[in-house]
Amino acid sequence: MSERRKTISVDVGNIKIGSDHPIRIQSMTNTDTSDIKNTIIQIKELHDAGSELVRITVNNENSANAVPSIISKLIQDNYKLPIIGDFHFNGHALLEKFPEMSDALAKYRINPGNIGGKEKFDKNFEKIIKIAIKNNKPIRIGGNWGSINKTVLNKLINDKQYDKDSVSYSYLIKKALISSVIDSANLAVKLGLPEDKIILSCKTSNVSELVDVYTDISKKCRYPLHVGLTEAGLGRDAIISSTSALAILLHTGIGDTIRVSLTPEQASKRTEEVLVCQQILSSLGKKNFKPQIVSCPGCGRTTNDYFVKLSQSIKSHINKNMVDWKVKYPGVENMKIAVMGCIVNGPGESKQADIGISLPGNNEDPSIPIYIKGEKFKTLNGSNIESQFIDILHTFIEENYS
Amino acid sequence: MSERRKTISVDVGNIKIGSDHPIRIQSMTNTDTSDIKNTIIQIKELHDAGSELVRITVNNENSANAVPSIISKLIQDNYKLPIIGDFHFNGHALLEKFPEMSDALAKYRINPGNIGGKEKFDKNFEKIIKIAIKNNKPIRIGGNWGSINKTVLNKLINDKQYDKDSVSYSYLIKKALISSVIDSANLAVKLGLPEDKIILSCKTSNVSELVDVYTDISKKCRYPLHVGLTEAGLGRDAIISSTSALAILLHTGIGDTIRVSLTPEQASKRTEEVLVCQQILSSLGKKNFKPQIVSCPGCGRTTNDYFVKLSQSIKSHINKNMVDWKVKYPGVENMKIAVMGCIVNGPGESKQADIGISLPGNNEDPSIPIYIKGEKFKTLNGSNIESQFIDILHTFIEENYS
Repeated sequence: MSERRKTISVDVGNIKIGSDHPIRIQSMTNTDTSDIKNTIIQIKELHDAGSELVRITVNNENSANAVPSIISKLIQDNYKLPIIGDFHFNGHALLEKFPEMSDALAKYRINPGNIGGKEKFDKNFEKIIKIAIKNNKPIRIGGNWGSINKTVLNKLINDKQYDKDSVSYSYLIKKALISSVIDSANLAVKLGLPEDKIILSCKTSNVSELVDVYTDISKKCRYPLHVGLTEAGLGRDAIISSTSALAILLHTGIGDTIRVSLTPEQASKRTEEVLVCQQILSSLGKKNFKPQIVSCPGCGRTTNDYFVKLSQSIKSHINKNMVDWKVKYPGVENMKIAVMGCIVNGPGESKQADIGISLPGNNEDPSIPIYIKGEKFKTLNGSNIESQFIDILHTFIEENYS
Repeated sequence: MSERRKTISVDVGNIKIGSDHPIRIQSMTNTDTSDIKNTIIQIKELHDAGSELVRITVNNENSANAVPSIISKLIQDNYKLPIIGDFHFNGHALLEKFPEMSDALAKYRINPGNIGGKEKFDKNFEKIIKIAIKNNKPIRIGGNWGSINKTVLNKLINDKQYDKDSVSYSYLIKKALISSVIDSANLAVKLGLPEDKIILSCKTSNVSELVDVYTDISKKCRYPLHVGLTEAGLGRDAIISSTSALAILLHTGIGDTIRVSLTPEQASKRTEEVLVCQQILSSLGKKNFKPQIVSCPGCGRTTNDYFVKLSQSIKSHINKNMVDWKVKYPGVENMKIAVMGCIVNGPGESKQADIGISLPGNNEDPSIPIYIKGEKFKTLNGSNIESQFIDILHTFIEENYS
C-alpha cells in the first residue's frame, strides 16, 4: 500500500477532504430534488448507511427553490452533513437567481463540459466562481468523458472513423478530459478562488482509462481527488468494475473521496452504493465499518453446508445489531470472526481471527473447537451450536469492546 | 497496466499457464467427489460458465476411487478440461494407492502445511513428487495461511500474545508462508521435478497481506502464480474483497490463473465464482466474455426509471442469448452498449459506445437518439422503445459480428 498522495485540505461543510484526512464516502440522491419530503428521506437513509456527504441534483428552478428547505429541515432533525449541489448547463443562472440555495449548499459540483460553448463558457464559469468566492464555498470541477466538450468529442470521433486508431483516440480523449479539468481549476484560481476550495474529478466508464486519467492528473496538481467509475452499469458487474478501479487507485495512494455509481436494480436499494464504498475501504484496510466474517467457499469436504448457514446467521446477526453495537461497543467494527467448514484451514483461520469456530467437514471428528485470540477456548457439542456460539460471541464483545 | 511478470509456462492438461498465455479462470466443486453423478454435473456447469480448469477434492479412498470414472465420463461427453486433484494430509497415500487416479488427474494441488510434521514431511513430499515425475504431471504447491505449519503458527501466535506487535506478527507469518512454498518448490526441483511442472500459490484472507505476499513471491521465482483471496466470506463483501485483491495484483502484472472463493449463498450458484472471475478480467481489459452495458446511476434528473428497466432488459436479453451469440457472432463479447438516462452524459457515453441509446431525463425533449459508432443513427419515438432498440441491436450484431 503506497502512502496517500499529498494534497491540499478542503473543508466541505466541516468535513475535511484531502490526504491529511480519512477517505470520505459520498453518494447522490435519485429523487426529484423538488420533492422535498422524499429527498430528505433519501438523504437521511444514505447518511445513516454511511454516506458522509450527499449530493443532490439542482437542475431547474423548482429544485433550486427546494434546497434551502431541505437543508434547514435536515439540520432541525440533527442531520448536519454537507449537501452538495450538482449543476449542469444552467448552474450559473440558478446559483445567481437563488442566493439562499447558493448559501445553503456546502459545495457546488460543476462540469466543465456542460457550462457552455467557448463563447459562453468564460462568462458562465466566472459567474459561478464569483458566487463561490462570495459564499466562501468549495467547488468540485467534475469532468466526465460522457460530457466532454462537444466540439472536441465530435472531432475525436470523426478522426477515429478515418484512423481506426483506438490507441490514439483513447490517448486524445484522456488528454482532452484532463485538460478541461486542470484548465478550469487554473482559471478558477486566476478568478480569485482560493486553492483550498477546489476538488477535482475526471471520470470515465472504463477502468483502465480511469486509472490512467487519475494517475496522470494526480501528478499535475495537489487538489484532493474525488474518484469513481462513472456509468458503471448494473448489479454485480458494476460492483466489480467499480471495485477494480478504486482498489487500484486507492492502493497507489490516489483518491480522497469516493463514490460508487450503480444503476439501482431496485429503487429501494440506493444505499447499496454506500455499502460498496465501505467494503472497498475495509478490504483495503483503510477503515472497518462492521465485523468481518472469514468463511471458506466449501468443497467436497463440506457437503454438509452447516458452516454456510452459520456464516449467514452470524452475518444477519451482525447486520441487525450493528446500529446498537456501534454506539455501545466502540471498536467492534474491527473484530474478525472466522466461520470455517473443515479441518484443512479451519483451525488456522480460526486461530488468526479474534474469535473463530471450526466446524467439522465430512467424516471428521464431530467436536467443534472455538478459538479466542489464537487459543482454544472451548469445544462445542450438541445441536444448538448457533446459539452457543452467539452467546460466546456476545460475551467476547462485552469483554473486549465495552 | 504493467506488463505480465515473466514466468515459465506450465502445461496443465493442454491448458498452458504462464505469462505467455491468457490469465486462466479456475474453480472448485463442492460436491462429494465420491458422488460421481453430481460431481460430473457440477464440473460441467462450472466449465460451461467459463471455468477453464476445475479442481475437485480427493480426501479419501472413495473419492480417489471415483476420479477415473468422473474423468472418463467427462471425456466421453466431450468435456476435455483439466481436472485437478486437491490433496491434504493423505495425498501421498492416496496418490500411491490409486495409480489410475494419479494418472487421470491433470495436476495435483498439494499444501505444504498439510503434508506432515517435520519428521514425516520429507518422506511424504518425496512420495508425491516421485509420482508426479512418473506420471509427467504438474503440481501446485498451494500454501494457505489457514494451514501454515502448526508449530510455526502456534509459536507466532504465542509471541503475539506477549508482544502485542501485530506488524511483526504479520511480517513473520507472511515470511513463514512464503518460505514454506518456496522451500517446497526448491525441494521438488531437487527431487527431479522439472521447473515447468510447478505452479505456486500463497493465499491469505486479508487483501493487504495477500498483495504483500504475492508481490514478494513474484520476485523470488519464475513459476506461474495461482492467485486468489482465500476464505473471502459471503456475498457482496466477498466479491468486493476478492476483486480488490485480484485487481491490484493483476494490474501490476502478477497472476497467471485466478480463483475467487465465495461462500455460496445458494447451493445452486456455485458458478457465481466463475462469473466474478470473468468480470474482474473484463474490468481490467484483459478479456471480455459478454457485451458490456454502460448505464448511469440515475439522479434527480431521471426519476422516471425507464432507463433502469431498459438496461435490465438488455442485460437479460444478452444473458439469454450469449450461448448462441458466442458461436454465431465471434467478437460480440467485445461490444459496448450504452443505456443512458439523461442529457448530461447520455449522448457522450452513447457516442463512445458501439451502440448507445440516450433516454430523456425529466422535462427533456422526449425524442430518443440512437448512436452507432459515434454517429446519430436514428431517433426513436412512441411506446415500444425496447423492442425497437432490440431490433436495431440485432441488426447491428448481424452486420458487425457475422
